[in-house]
Amino acid sequence: MNYKNQILQKIDSNTEVVGIIGLGYVGLPLAVNFAEAGVKVIGFDKSEAKVKKINSGENYIKDIRDAVLRKVVDSVTLEATTDFTKMKECDALIICVPTPLDKFRKPDMSYIEASCVAIGQNMKPGTFISLESTTYPTTTEDLMLPIIEKESGLIHDKDFWLAYSPERVDPGNKTFHTKNTPKVLGAMSDDGLKIGKALYNNAIDNIYTVSSPRVAEMVKILENTYRLVNISLINELALLAGKMDINIWEVIDAAATKPFGFQPFYPGPGIGGHCIPLDPFYLEHIAKRFDFDLSMIHTAGHINMRMPHYMYIKISTALNRLKKSVNGSYILFLGVAYKPNIDDERESPALEIIDLVIHKGGNVNYNDPHISSVNTNNGNKLQSIELNEQNLNNADCVVLTTNHDAFDVEFIKKHSGLIVDLRNMVKESSDTVYKL
Amino acid sequence: MNYKNQILQKIDSNTEVVGIIGLGYVGLPLAVNFAEAGVKVIGFDKSEAKVKKINSGENYIKDIRDAVLRKVVDSVTLEATTDFTKMKECDALIICVPTPLDKFRKPDMSYIEASCVAIGQNMKPGTFISLESTTYPTTTEDLMLPIIEKESGLIHDKDFWLAYSPERVDPGNKTFHTKNTPKVLGAMSDDGLKIGKALYNNAIDNIYTVSSPRVAEMVKILENTYRLVNISLINELALLAGKMDINIWEVIDAAATKPFGFQPFYPGPGIGGHCIPLDPFYLEHIAKRFDFDLSMIHTAGHINMRMPHYMYIKISTALNRLKKSVNGSYILFLGVAYKPNIDDERESPALEIIDLVIHKGGNVNYNDPHISSVNTNNGNKLQSIELNEQNLNNADCVVLTTNHDAFDVEFIKKHSGLIVDLRNMVKESSDTVYKL
Repeated sequence: MNYKNQILQKIDSNTEVVGIIGLGYVGLPLAVNFAEAGVKVIGFDKSEAKVKKINSGENYIKDIRDAVLRKVVDSVTLEATTDFTKMKECDALIICVPTPLDKFRKPDMSYIEASCVAIGQNMKPGTFISLESTTYPTTTEDLMLPIIEKESGLIHDKDFWLAYSPERVDPGNKTFHTKNTPKVLGAMSDDGLKIGKALYNNAIDNIYTVSSPRVAEMVKILENTYRLVNISLINELALLAGKMDINIWEVIDAAATKPFGFQPFYPGPGIGGHCIPLDPFYLEHIAKRFDFDLSMIHTAGHINMRMPHYMYIKISTALNRLKKSVNGSYILFLGVAYKPNIDDERESPALEIIDLVIHKGGNVNYNDPHISSVNTNNGNKLQSIELNEQNLNNADCVVLTTNHDAFDVEFIKKHSGLIVDLRNMVKESSDTVYKL
Repeated sequence: MNYKNQILQKIDSNTEVVGIIGLGYVGLPLAVNFAEAGVKVIGFDKSEAKVKKINSGENYIKDIRDAVLRKVVDSVTLEATTDFTKMKECDALIICVPTPLDKFRKPDMSYIEASCVAIGQNMKPGTFISLESTTYPTTTEDLMLPIIEKESGLIHDKDFWLAYSPERVDPGNKTFHTKNTPKVLGAMSDDGLKIGKALYNNAIDNIYTVSSPRVAEMVKILENTYRLVNISLINELALLAGKMDINIWEVIDAAATKPFGFQPFYPGPGIGGHCIPLDPFYLEHIAKRFDFDLSMIHTAGHINMRMPHYMYIKISTALNRLKKSVNGSYILFLGVAYKPNIDDERESPALEIIDLVIHKGGNVNYNDPHISSVNTNNGNKLQSIELNEQNLNNADCVVLTTNHDAFDVEFIKKHSGLIVDLRNMVKESSDTVYKL
């Protein structure tokens, strides 16, 4: 029997072994999904700590229910390891590693490259390989394929199959999670597409196939570029509206009554997280190789990069009305997560504003019910302090940076002398509340 | 009884007289809506031809059913006139005049100003005035109010009321029309808001009130800026995708399977019509007075302005493969309307591409089932020719510029030697079809 029929038969009988490389907020939920469906999963990660946690049934991803993780670990459907030679036990390998930007905002492909080297050196013939990390179009075909073929000595579409299927994880989303979010899949060959669709269907409800990996790569970038551009647009309009004595939040709510052709986006202190502020710049990077300048992404990126600075100016302006300077004032930030009700402060604009305020001599504290301590880019280490009457009272300025549901806005308003509200949490306007 | 109670009583008993100034695609449907609700309407327009047509029950707006117009004219609920002194017979005056850009892309406020002069000179005390034309925030308060007060000698909020309520007409929309599209309303005083809401409710199902005219002005601009920016973004990505051998239409369809946080926009030869290519530049104009540069609108506008040129290059490149030049070739354009199934070619990118092709020596014909003749910006006059086998055969290149439902794509494909498809009308790719 050839490799193709072998893997298809295993998938058909749920007896395939799936290796998931990278056990973060994408890989671990996917691993749990496969394991819940009765598929044997081996999770690979370089972090001993993560692997140990998983193998003892300890959950570190908010969107996974603790009990579910414990169940699949206890039943040995899911095990984690740092031993990459175990890749040869897998019929399919799914890569869920980070694709960050480096300090000069260029794509850092080292995690994908390292995964491809490990796969090439360890996989058995007949393996299906899929990349889920967000990256620029052509990555699967032009970057991954040569590495895997070189390291393995195997031949694509005969000895293994390569595909791209972007993750669409939206942390904190109560309605859509890995299983019920339609999944886009593009493979480098017809057989690869067939195998990939069958495999993913064991764990995910709907698979939407496209004609190539580069189309699938572009899909994910389009989704997040759409969000970057629209958030940047509304942030720019919010700054203008402030000057024109127009409440931008009221404008957005009214525009949202249009029953066609409009989707509301809301301003904020800048875009955070690991996707929207990064993904479009992967496309901008590859576009240069095609002599192409993506002016919309460039402009949106510029606005987003400047937002923390504008927010610093808002704080400074608010204090100025009370004849206070940032230098020497006590500033309390409420919320450092990049969006509400999650425990993730990666790329959070709150941290950038905190760095700016500290740099200018402000005394900063913060409270976040979901994040007990943070390290900022500038190396400032802070611990979340209690959100109580005294701490609010002590602050010269309270800055609302994340609209966590846990925040009691009435309580905050009652005990704060001056509020800078970057999230429209205080609905009524007042002399002591400055809104974005 | 004071003016306020007078007008409210009339509105309550449907006995108010409403004057509509400007009987185009916004004013006439609104007039018909009020008249259908049993409210007496006087339509004002400078055009003798339009007034004559209406008074003889002849309809010239596609979204209005002919029978409905005839009915309200026959029952004398609606009459049209060029005599602006009849404004004194009206209890309410609603302005629906054009707000174009001049040749240097600056707002042309002359129609609004002329309307305000006419109103000031002719209205009776106790009149409610509302502007529906799209314009930059502050127009109602800072431009209109001074003119009306000066010309009338009357005092706002005592002798008359001024409000802004943006039209949301979407020509060709089969689901949402004037009556069932929620209407945003902002007035300069509480009494004005109360009167305006009661008045519009006689003709329109849902009125959504906001705190000021400038908020309402910004709402409309936000709605259309959102569309300009997103269409420009997808147009720019489409140009890049073409270079990267990625079918952008396939990408958009796949991205649209994301069940949250995404709204699909489709590329095209540029944005046409009387709203989306114009409205954002009203905001850009006023922003300068606040020392503010709207970089997103600027960038989007730049892309949109360049699209016809890029489309010309597509045509030239397609012909080049057949060793033909634009100069001397026969080019047949299918569709000159700016969007499908409507009879409006205002600001249509098709006309700009036609001008470019003619300028470079191409022999241009066009067919549009909804538009029998056109005059381009460069002064070229063309008549729609028949869409038949011979005319398709005769063309060196057939350009699909508008995706009218009436076009039989199979027939066009069968009889055309070379197609440049700017609207994804031909789904399969082929050597003789060039897609945007």
